Amino acid sequence: MAAGFASLADSRRQLQAEAVNSGGADQKIIETTGARIEGLKEYSIEDVSKHDSPENRVWVTYKNGVYDITDFIPMHPGATKLLMAAGSSVEPFWAMYAVHLNNPAIYEMLERFRIGNLNLADAASQAEQIASDASDPYSTDPARHKAIVVNSKTPFNGETPLSILTDSFITPTDLFYVRNHLPVPDVDIKEYELEVSGLGIKELNLSLAELKKLPKHKIVATVQCAGNRRAEMRATKNLKGLEWRGGAIGNAEWAGAKLSDVLNAAGFDENDERIRHVHFEGLDTDPSNSPYGASIPIEKASDPRGDVLLAYEMNGEPLNRDHGYPVRVIVPGVAGARNVKWLGKISVSDVESDSHWQQNDYKGFNPSTDWDTVDFSKSPAIQDMPVTSSICSPAPGAKVKGGQELAVSGYAWSGGGRKIVRVDLTADGGKTWTQAESLEQDTARHPRHWGWTVWKGKVVVPEGVEETTEVWSKAVDSSYNVQPETFANIWNLRGVLSNAYCKLKLSVQN
Amino acid sequence: MAAGFASLADSRRQLQAEAVNSGGADQKIIETTGARIEGLKEYSIEDVSKHDSPENRVWVTYKNGVYDITDFIPMHPGATKLLMAAGSSVEPFWAMYAVHLNNPAIYEMLERFRIGNLNLADAASQAEQIASDASDPYSTDPARHKAIVVNSKTPFNGETPLSILTDSFITPTDLFYVRNHLPVPDVDIKEYELEVSGLGIKELNLSLAELKKLPKHKIVATVQCAGNRRAEMRATKNLKGLEWRGGAIGNAEWAGAKLSDVLNAAGFDENDERIRHVHFEGLDTDPSNSPYGASIPIEKASDPRGDVLLAYEMNGEPLNRDHGYPVRVIVPGVAGARNVKWLGKISVSDVESDSHWQQNDYKGFNPSTDWDTVDFSKSPAIQDMPVTSSICSPAPGAKVKGGQELAVSGYAWSGGGRKIVRVDLTADGGKTWTQAESLEQDTARHPRHWGWTVWKGKVVVPEGVEETTEVWSKAVDSSYNVQPETFANIWNLRGVLSNAYCKLKLSVQN
Repeated sequence: MAAGFASLADSRRQLQAEAVNSGGADQKIIETTGARIEGLKEYSIEDVSKHDSPENRVWVTYKNGVYDITDFIPMHPGATKLLMAAGSSVEPFWAMYAVHLNNPAIYEMLERFRIGNLNLADAASQAEQIASDASDPYSTDPARHKAIVVNSKTPFNGETPLSILTDSFITPTDLFYVRNHLPVPDVDIKEYELEVSGLGIKELNLSLAELKKLPKHKIVATVQCAGNRRAEMRATKNLKGLEWRGGAIGNAEWAGAKLSDVLNAAGFDENDERIRHVHFEGLDTDPSNSPYGASIPIEKASDPRGDVLLAYEMNGEPLNRDHGYPVRVIVPGVAGARNVKWLGKISVSDVESDSHWQQNDYKGFNPSTDWDTVDFSKSPAIQDMPVTSSICSPAPGAKVKGGQELAVSGYAWSGGGRKIVRVDLTADGGKTWTQAESLEQDTARHPRHWGWTVWKGKVVVPEGVEETTEVWSKAVDSSYNVQPETFANIWNLRGVLSNAYCKLKLSVQN
Repeated sequence: MAAGFASLADSRRQLQAEAVNSGGADQKIIETTGARIEGLKEYSIEDVSKHDSPENRVWVTYKNGVYDITDFIPMHPGATKLLMAAGSSVEPFWAMYAVHLNNPAIYEMLERFRIGNLNLADAASQAEQIASDASDPYSTDPARHKAIVVNSKTPFNGETPLSILTDSFITPTDLFYVRNHLPVPDVDIKEYELEVSGLGIKELNLSLAELKKLPKHKIVATVQCAGNRRAEMRATKNLKGLEWRGGAIGNAEWAGAKLSDVLNAAGFDENDERIRHVHFEGLDTDPSNSPYGASIPIEKASDPRGDVLLAYEMNGEPLNRDHGYPVRVIVPGVAGARNVKWLGKISVSDVESDSHWQQNDYKGFNPSTDWDTVDFSKSPAIQDMPVTSSICSPAPGAKVKGGQELAVSGYAWSGGGRKIVRVDLTADGGKTWTQAESLEQDTARHPRHWGWTVWKGKVVVPEGVEETTEVWSKAVDSSYNVQPETFANIWNLRGVLSNAYCKLKLSVQN
């Protein structure tokens, strides 16, 4: 299969080259995929439906096409999701995971697995069925602030522009980055109940009012997507994932009940050695009604000093829909993906969540691991995030002169409750360093310093540089961990953990 | 003063150059320092004794010489220690801090501050007094295993040779590195009492037998000197500190009472917001009877999950004298310097320890901070240590051939209870990486994984290399923090936190 992928990449590059000339190759691939091909074998919907597992071979349909995708499954990042379409049409799933739509590489890939046509009668009735089901699952998503930079509309993913990100220590809710994996659920608060259950505890079903009766805790905590700053890593070498520029991070005040209090209310016994993980399920679901899910280790969940909140307020207001109304988990210091929104269910377990996002995404690998060799079971799910920083001002490409003193500002953050102790800056590739003189932080102490640092410093543009120069930022946290220097040596195929030095390019005009 | 230092460095280089020719310049400096210089003003011991503080100017004597060292004090790494000699002879202090002895740079520095001679009568009586006091403070130090690589005899500092360091997961006590700051005290167990006192708690005085009545906890924990691997950082650019090659680390099983239990027994109230730090004092003292000391934050000290032990056993045996008999603190995940040996006193406080080693040593700075600009008050004392790794086999300079598969092994560790999740290896400067396939670890989980990882992996020496090649190791911990790539960008004047990639040089013989 490796060879298949390589040759696909080759033909893709060739197609792209042709598209530049013809202007239409991509569009043609999209339009012709799934069209009848006379002479291929004809199948019925019933024939296809029998091929619903790897043991029986996995067949799917797309428009008039029938495909045997069994050999593709191990290579698909969302293999468990893909299996839900086994024996039926992929079209509802592509509507949900809209990254597939209008992506010619995906259409071309599918067509490589073509084995036949759906018979004319079944193709027509299936098209009718899909059309009648096809209310856009994203049609009830909330409106967003127009300043948010949109990376994907469905599911909605948008980030705060770097130019305004550090203008306030607390990120305004409407400008806070949004990372959704599925449509935003429309929760009826009268019906809402949070289920708490699992190994060795008694089941609780808590309304929002009941949750609010538990002691209310407030923390300042930064939430960051594990893929933040991916664009900088991608500039080294291509990879899969949303184009986060550095704004998939924000700092807010969160209020809610402590998860440790809820676990205690359910009779959790910290000496129960079987319990290793706490699972969270969102009320956001895919076409097979499967929810978004994640888990965190019991050590973090049950420690009152871990400050894991079942938050119902953000910046002093009830959560809004994009940020998890009515309740989300805030797991401070931990990757955004574990901070499950629209929380419907908490369960304690001896094993990790088996969700796609826990098992087959949000993990780190070394730079030589590619899609042919990756084994997601061999790498731990990202929890605590490593130290990072980003330069928010000046803007990339800003004009500077040799000898000029330049004000530089940005943010820095480290996971695991580690406070930033220093931000070093250099304008000459590390020959000389200055230290950011202002670090705006809240008063929490290591290892419960969950909020970010907004920093300001100065560098002098070296004399004698021409055309372009770079300013670098390097943060150091309270464990004296420091950012790695280059993306090349931390590159990974999913573009997560993208925490190398921020190297801002500027235009020199002497 | 900066200029003074620069010109001193110049004249030092010149002297060294001359010494190469003459073979005796260094020895001459040592022999002539403190000799009478006819024509200089004569002072009495009483004259000198009046100059005992910066307000009165600080004078000291060495043999027949009188020196006004007031302007030197801000530049001395141990300024608080230096002031103890104010108004008297430096000779007893140099016997204790033996790094001074026979170091021509130090003798030459002192002579630059010469203001006069001690009068003949006083010089003679003082010499007699010093000679009668001069029982070697290190004469009662214990014997050490001959395999230990000695970096300093007095105080004793020695490390485990890298060639044997990872032969066992638990480092044998006799081969465990020793980092002493002062002579080893000879504790009479019948007299021993551990004092526990301070802000808001009741005073306890615990015999070893009483300490043993508290619940006994065992942990596997690595202890590492904050200056471990300094030799690799020094190879980038010179700095001050002992020449640790990578063996100032070891992994042992420690047993003792939890500090949190002792604090609770003394009535510690975790809601007492005044209490911020817990101080430790050793029974090892300097000529002014001042003990070794350090402190840790209350968050670490009082948290039972922090696993801070008052350890009386190492690897199943009572502590030996070099490792702190009868009781030392084990602060797992934290720099060795806070793991105070020969523990005499614990006190809770609103402020950090004012000891030299807490305030003016064991702190990090950026590479542009030098001895003229350093301000130790501006940097936090090192507590949790960052992620590190070292290659222990093959040995540096081992002979290899292009195309050869090479077995590589070593250790990796991260502070703060973070487990090692991956060790990446490359033999071609990062173009391709392999992952160490064996990670030997204990079963503790993040964030209480205090022990190290002994790893084994393979790389292939690239074809076409000539003369020398390098193998690099890069560890990743459970917060996905990763080692920085080069020492140049983390260099600091004290050579601590030396955790860049290990880059092992090998000889190519094709």
